[in-house]
This record gives sequence, C-alpha cells and structure tokens, in this order.
Amino acid sequence: MPSLLTSFDLVGTFVFALSGALVAARKDFDVVGVFVLSLAAGLGGGAIRDVLINDLPPAAVENESYLVAVLAAATVAYVIPERIERINYSVRYLDALGLGFFAVVGSQKAVDADLGFIAALLVGVIAAAGGGVIRDLLASTTPLLLHQDIYALAALLGSVAFLAASEFGLPYAPAAILGVAATFLLRAAAIRYHLHAPRPRRQRKR
Amino acid sequence: MPSLLTSFDLVGTFVFALSGALVAARKDFDVVGVFVLSLAAGLGGGAIRDVLINDLPPAAVENESYLVAVLAAATVAYVIPERIERINYSVRYLDALGLGFFAVVGSQKAVDADLGFIAALLVGVIAAAGGGVIRDLLASTTPLLLHQDIYALAALLGSVAFLAASEFGLPYAPAAILGVAATFLLRAAAIRYHLHAPRPRRQRKR
Amino acid sequence: MPSLLTSFDLVGTFVFALSGALVAARKDFDVVGVFVLSLAAGLGGGAIRDVLINDLPPAAVENESYLVAVLAAATVAYVIPERIERINYSVRYLDALGLGFFAVVGSQKAVDADLGFIAALLVGVIAAAGGGVIRDLLASTTPLLLHQDIYALAALLGSVAFLAASEFGLPYAPAAILGVAATFLLRAAAIRYHLHAPRPRRQRKR
Repeated sequence: MPSLLTSFDLVGTFVFALSGALVAARKDFDVVGVFVLSLAAGLGGGAIRDVLINDLPPAAVENESYLVAVLAAATVAYVIPERIERINYSVRYLDALGLGFFAVVGSQKAVDADLGFIAALLVGVIAAAGGGVIRDLLASTTPLLLHQDIYALAALLGSVAFLAASEFGLPYAPAAILGVAATFLLRAAAIRYHLHAPRPRRQRKR
Repeated sequence: MPSLLTSFDLVGTFVFALSGALVAARKDFDVVGVFVLSLAAGLGGGAIRDVLINDLPPAAVENESYLVAVLAAATVAYVIPERIERINYSVRYLDALGLGFFAVVGSQKAVDADLGFIAALLVGVIAAAGGGVIRDLLASTTPLLLHQDIYALAALLGSVAFLAASEFGLPYAPAAILGVAATFLLRAAAIRYHLHAPRPRRQRKR
Repeated sequence: MPSLLTSFDLVGTFVFALSGALVAARKDFDVVGVFVLSLAAGLGGGAIRDVLINDLPPAAVENESYLVAVLAAATVAYVIPERIERINYSVRYLDALGLGFFAVVGSQKAVDADLGFIAALLVGVIAAAGGGVIRDLLASTTPLLLHQDIYALAALLGSVAFLAASEFGLPYAPAAILGVAATFLLRAAAIRYHLHAPRPRRQRKR
C-alpha cells in the first residue's frame, strides 16, 4: 500500500515541520529561519532513513508533496500567533506524534527494502529521531532525544508494535495506527507524568 | 559542459574552504583544525548534494582536485596573517560567493539527474547552505543560515535565476554567472545594508 | 579477507561505542541516552564511510553484529561504576584505539571500492573521526577533533602506514595492525605529552 505509506510519511513530515517552525519561533528566528528549521525537522529523518535503506534520491526530493507539507507547516506556524508557553507545550506533543508516524514508516520501508527485523527497528528509530535531532542541533539546543528520557524508547515501542502486528497478520492500516498510537501514548505519558529511564550508577557527582 | 560545471564546483569549494579556515583561525584552532574546518565547509555541501541526487561516491571523493582546492584554501588562510576584524568581514563575503557557486552547481546537477524544477531548487539551496551549516556546527556557533536573515533566500534567488535563464535558452556559462551574481549581490546587500526578513508575529517576548 | 576486515570494524565499533557511553555517563544522561550516544559514536563514522564509498545500506544496517557490539559496549558502561576522573581518562584512550581501527578499515574499504590512494586517505580519516564528531555534537561539546591537536593527524598516519605497508606487499593482518598501532601510539603520545600542532600566525588575540 504505497499511497497509505506515503500519506503517513507526509503527516509525519507536516507534524515534525510544525515542531521545527515552533522551535524557530521560540528562538525568535526570522521567516527564513522558520522555514529552514521546518525543512530540517520535517525532511531530515526521512532523508537519513532513505540513505540507510539505499532508496536514493530521498522521497522528499523525488516527490514535491513533501515540500508542500513543509511549506504548509511553516505557514501555519507563521500566521498563528501563540504564546510562548503554549509553543513549548505544543512542540513536545507534535514531536511525539511525528515520532510515531516516522517510526512506523521507517520500519515499513526497511522491511520493503528486504532488511531484517532488527535492522527495521534500527531504521525506524533513527528515521523517527533523526529530524528532531537535526532540528535541535541547528537550534543549538541539546537534542530532546538525549535529555528527555522516554524518547527513543517510545519510537522503539512503536516500531516493535507495528512490526509485530504486521507479523501476526494485521493489515497495514491498523498495524500502522497501532504503532503510531503506541509511540504517542508512551511519549505523552512520559511528558505528562515525568517518567524517567534509570540512570547509570555513579559513585558520586562532581 | 561537465568541465565548466566542475570548475564552478571547485571555485565554490575553494571559497567555502577559505571561509572554514578563517572561522577556524578566529576560533584559534590549530593547523589541523584549520584543515578540518576547511574540508567540512568546502566539501560538506557538495557531499550532501551528491547523496540527495544519488550520485555516489561524491565528486569530492572521486576527483582529487577537490582536496587540492581545500588544501590550497587552508594554506592561504594559514600563511596570511590577518587582523581578526578583517577575518570576520571576509568570512561573510566569501561565504556569499560560495553560496552562489554551490546554488548554481547544485541546481544543475539535480536537473542532470532528471529531478524536477522544485527539487532542483531544494537541492541547490541545500548544497549551497550545507557546507556552511556543517562548518558552523563544528565550530559550535549557531549556523549563519539561521540568524543571518537573507541567506537561504539568496541561494534560492540564485537557483531560480539560473534555472529560469537556462529554461529561456541562455547558454550554460552566462546563466550560471547570472545565478552566482544574483546570490552574491542579494547576500552582499543584506550584509551591507542589514536587510532582514520579517519575523513571525509573537504576542510578547519573554 | 572480508571476515578480518569485519572483525576490525566490529572492534572499532565496540571501542567507539564505549567512548560514547562514557561521554553519556559523564553528562549524566539516562540509560537511553547512553545507548543513543553509543550508537552514534559506534556506527556514525562507518555509516558516513559507507555513504562516501557508495556501499549502501551501511554495514551496520545489513549486519546485526554491529548492533550487538554497540549493545555490549553500552551494557559494559552501564554496569561498571567508574569514578568521573577515570572516565574522562578512559574516553580519550578508547577513542584513540577506535580511531586506529576505523582509519584502517575505512582506507581498506575505499581501496576495495576502487578509489585512489588520496581518496582512501580521505575516507579513512573521515570514517575514523566521524563517529567521535557526531558523539561530541550530540553531547553539545566542541568535537575532540578540533580542540585536541593531534587527532585527525593520527588517523591520517594510520591510514598512510596501512596503505603504504599494503602497497609494499605486507599481508592484510600485519599491515592493519601496523596502521592501528601507528594511530594509537601517536594519539596516545599526544595525550600523554600534550603534543600540539602549530597554530596559524595571528597579529594579536582579541
């Protein structure tokens, strides 16, 4: 079902692009900075994914819908005035949603490229986390991935849920929705209830 | 005209490599740091471009002239003592010139790879801005792309001018020079006259 | 000898992944952050290498042993409590060892991909330094590559030693060990004796 796959990819792109635009607005970047950060957040993870599965040129270069999704997200972010606190809040939930879509699409594309289960998990997580990492590096902030605890874990859960559901014969659409929901719910719960992964043992802090 | 294309690409590489070397000098990096930042700034954008258009290995790996261009730039930066204020000044104009060359070459290579007009613009802008972004990330500074207003826009203008001129039948060399000039003049005007793109509306700053 | 090449690559992956895990521990990241930084440090350089030599999907995606090496390194770092001062010390020597393995493997893979001597040096150095650069960027620190003097130079020496020894007819294993040793010894000497590369001349510091 390539068209459903592409639709999911475009939704993930839009949502991540919106997160990029909001980060840019929070940093007080100009309209071009807003677009650039939308582009990086929306297309970065998918571009890394397409390199990893050797499906080049990346989907975002071959299909202009991706750029339209980014432009739409940047426009939405540009025209809607929002209070800073809300922006901060929205970025994290949008990011959680994009994480789910990209984890599912990344895993599916890896399977379509004849890669194994473990490789499909790896590609799903990197595709999901990649755009946000590039967004945060460009905006000179430590990636959410590293200091927000349940982040890569949520992408991993979504990839596992999707691949397992597909393996057990669930059709593509419900399996994909299951994967997106698993990622979003775990990530949202982590944000809402301040869930943390355990830290490595250390004798003492300096 | 592959040889003219390669010449333009080498000039862009040299100019961006020089900007990388000057950033390294400003940061007081050693001779290796100067070379590494030259390499990243000079070859980074072209490498990303070649991934996006699926023309791998990248030109810079297959053709040793690129490395020679980088070495020449690093040597020039190393042997010429310069006052810091001048370095700061030079980096931005060299960067503007490199931006023009890479925008034109990136767009042309995308067209040669049978990508459409919009994709050629995207590849041109990413090729042009990519090396500078990698240079700035390595040097731990926020990318010029994001906090200097008319930057990606200048690359976009150059790509549009070049592709439109080619479309209207202008031969490669004048079309390319038109594209480089358009980028350089807009970017130089933005530096000189402090031109800004508009910022997103915000209710208030924190 | 593909299996020896892969073994060397896996050792480099393990050692760099360990350096990533220790950087994460020093930064007080959680268990996921430890794994992510291990992954980035262990697999980043090899992934860039495989893009540069057009050997996609990257080895780390096609062969699950790489992920096992990363998991092993993250587990070792997670279960062994270590004093902070020791971690700082260990990271730099582990990094030196990974640098040697990746320089040799990168150069060999470039030669296997029919690239020339200079390109093989370039690929070796980028493969060797790439993982550490990604690790340091993610951890929001200036890359070791830029502020620790004899770093890229050590990778370059290892690549040169390995390629020259191969050229003079030495079998793969001793040539590779020579290359790893050359990199490690130069880098370790630079750490131990605070060796510096010369800096560019400057009229005055600001």
